[in-house]
Amino acid sequence: MQAAPAIQTLLDELERLPGIGAKSAQRIAEWILNADRATAMRLPAAIEAAKDTVHLCERCFNYAQDDLCAICASSTRDASVLCVVSLPRDIAPIERTGVFSGVYHVLGGALSPMEGIGPDRLHITELMRRLADEEIREVVVATNPNIEGETTATYLARLIKPLGVEVTRPASGLPVGGDLELADEATLGRALEGRRPL
Amino acid sequence: MQAAPAIQTLLDELERLPGIGAKSAQRIAEWILNADRATAMRLPAAIEAAKDTVHLCERCFNYAQDDLCAICASSTRDASVLCVVSLPRDIAPIERTGVFSGVYHVLGGALSPMEGIGPDRLHITELMRRLADEEIREVVVATNPNIEGETTATYLARLIKPLGVEVTRPASGLPVGGDLELADEATLGRALEGRRPL
Repeated sequence: MQAAPAIQTLLDELERLPGIGAKSAQRIAEWILNADRATAMRLPAAIEAAKDTVHLCERCFNYAQDDLCAICASSTRDASVLCVVSLPRDIAPIERTGVFSGVYHVLGGALSPMEGIGPDRLHITELMRRLADEEIREVVVATNPNIEGETTATYLARLIKPLGVEVTRPASGLPVGGDLELADEATLGRALEGRRPL
Repeated sequence: MQAAPAIQTLLDELERLPGIGAKSAQRIAEWILNADRATAMRLPAAIEAAKDTVHLCERCFNYAQDDLCAICASSTRDASVLCVVSLPRDIAPIERTGVFSGVYHVLGGALSPMEGIGPDRLHITELMRRLADEEIREVVVATNPNIEGETTATYLARLIKPLGVEVTRPASGLPVGGDLELADEATLGRALEGRRPL
């Protein structure tokens, strides 16, 4: 489309979103221009509502609309097992497994000396306060299985273990349904080290 | 992220956009939630402005903010050469070539007996009126080089030629920089038929 100024502005704003290039922006802009006004205005309304009502849970730093997030506010969760994750987006995949019924604590990132992210940039002070105030018997450190995530996990383990709280980490190993031949050496090595009796 | 209702609504609305799946929606939602309010609200503002100010050019059916689109309103275009395209989005790539300085007419689609799109569904009556009212000596039919586009081009040629107006079609052939070995037969066939003296 030969861009009228309002279309060019729309294209520019769409291209600022992560993962949206020129072609996707064009397709989306066209969809918006062709939609009736009420349909097109649902996304703007959703964005405004999210910006106005969503903040971080004052206990765990997950996204929340009330003071506490839905998980912290729930009476059916096991508050004695706390899963530490880097970012709010890490919670959904864990919830989908249906295997974890504890609560969470979002660090807001991972330790990275390379990027100058030290412990003071993460919600670690708040985590330690929760460990002091709440009755937590196990901390599952579910940071990513990469250098930053492992560094963070090791750092937290050193901090938490002296409190007499159990610190665990999800197992590394072969993906279920995966092909042994296709596994990278690091993953296969971890899988062998972590081998379990049948 | 464990979705608060406002986040779930935002994700739903993002996933309604063409080409946006669950993962992209999540990345974009996260970007919006992390952005400061002013930044996040630029897209909603752009969508609203586009819906409120953009309509179709009353002459050529390109997108426009005034009665006429920027091209129809321009005094530097050659109004005697008219390029017919299917959709507004077809104009930008032609403009980018820098080779065409004429004006446009957007049909709003292409003939497709399969989908029940006949001539009455396209802006063909308006095209014929322009040919009667304006001083047009050549019509370049730049519909897509596929079945619907070719059908539309043939239909228009039969309609326009009797008026004594030249009807042309962009050449089909090998893409510049392409590899002869990789060309499909139809394209290579067209390229050979359309061969030109060196």
